[in-house]
Amino acid sequence: MSYSKIKTIAFDADDTLWVNETYFRETEEKFCKLLSFYDTENKIDQELFKVIIRNLPLYGYGSKSFVLSMIESALELSDYSIHPRLIEKILDLGKEILQHPIHLLDGVPEVLSDLNGKYKLIVATKGDLLEQEQKLHKSGLLQYFHHIEIMSEKRPQDYQKLIRHLDIRPEEFLMIGNSLKSDILPCLQIGAMAVHVPFHTTWIYEEISVNSDWSEKYRTINKLSEVRDLLNGP
Amino acid sequence: MSYSKIKTIAFDADDTLWVNETYFRETEEKFCKLLSFYDTENKIDQELFKVIIRNLPLYGYGSKSFVLSMIESALELSDYSIHPRLIEKILDLGKEILQHPIHLLDGVPEVLSDLNGKYKLIVATKGDLLEQEQKLHKSGLLQYFHHIEIMSEKRPQDYQKLIRHLDIRPEEFLMIGNSLKSDILPCLQIGAMAVHVPFHTTWIYEEISVNSDWSEKYRTINKLSEVRDLLNGP
Repeated sequence: MSYSKIKTIAFDADDTLWVNETYFRETEEKFCKLLSFYDTENKIDQELFKVIIRNLPLYGYGSKSFVLSMIESALELSDYSIHPRLIEKILDLGKEILQHPIHLLDGVPEVLSDLNGKYKLIVATKGDLLEQEQKLHKSGLLQYFHHIEIMSEKRPQDYQKLIRHLDIRPEEFLMIGNSLKSDILPCLQIGAMAVHVPFHTTWIYEEISVNSDWSEKYRTINKLSEVRDLLNGP
Repeated sequence: MSYSKIKTIAFDADDTLWVNETYFRETEEKFCKLLSFYDTENKIDQELFKVIIRNLPLYGYGSKSFVLSMIESALELSDYSIHPRLIEKILDLGKEILQHPIHLLDGVPEVLSDLNGKYKLIVATKGDLLEQEQKLHKSGLLQYFHHIEIMSEKRPQDYQKLIRHLDIRPEEFLMIGNSLKSDILPCLQIGAMAVHVPFHTTWIYEEISVNSDWSEKYRTINKLSEVRDLLNGP
């Protein structure tokens, strides 16, 4: 696999540049504890997931959508008997996530600093516009990026639009991210390149299995810094 | 005032291309009725506004932020005694707004169709990414626009970034919108041009007074179609 044509490298943000999923899982645990009077942790978790997926077309990704779905689940799980103070606690859980400090993943600034200048670096992230902008600002990484693309979805056609906008060919575009479903497969499907950096936790909605036809078309690395060796090639 | 240098025309979306504020005001009225047991309509309205503005830096604009602030206000106004069924009703008010059909303002498709080809047309709108994308999609207007810019804020520096990105000079950029605060003043401040199309309802947070130094630098029209006469000029 040769990366010699690559001109633009796009990085996913959540769980690729910084920790994210961990905080959502922690918040879910707190939510289950808040509602433990009404059901088992397992049942609450399932109900919340169901409500989130049901609301996804309307609400999209991000913390505000997550909070609205937690409130809806709490109403249903309690059969509309929940104390308003618990609703307040759920609003507070959302504000905590929105105000959480950014923890960069290992070696991230060093890699970006190294690649900056050799490639055009961009961020291509899914989620809530204001929330992702605020995270990028807090991350201190803005200086390395030429362009920030916040996408409502990461389907093949969304990447195609981005690549047209960048005025390059698909084979000149490399996407790096932790989600096979959102970062890797859609890029391979349009003839772009992709490198997978798994994060230890994956949201169940992002989990997929990849057949061997596709798995031969991308490389997996353990941490972001290893992308330098790939790009320098054999 | 000459518009002869203009290359790109940016349109605000909410209350410039389609009705928006009206639905938020209607929702606020429904919210006040839901809570009428706890306080006067006037007091509820004030409290909601206070909570929205307090949450604005964290939540930003859009319906999801609006719903979260309605819930927070309802908890406070009821002194945490509100029935969970009313919280459900507030969630439903939010879903109604998000699913509301788009009503285009008078003559909008005709103006866009006329200007398309003569100018590069873009949308520059504030708000929630997914929500604004969905509205544009439902509007049937996407075909006229070269680029959609969804901004978390509309400050002078945000327009500067947009203009740099478009690779034009400020005097080649014309912004058309209903908000003096968000669409007109920040553009004038960076040397771009602006045309004001007032909508009958303005959110109080967007209301400002404009001193005569600025008011001489932009034109006001009654409806969007009048922009054609301005551009054709004397």
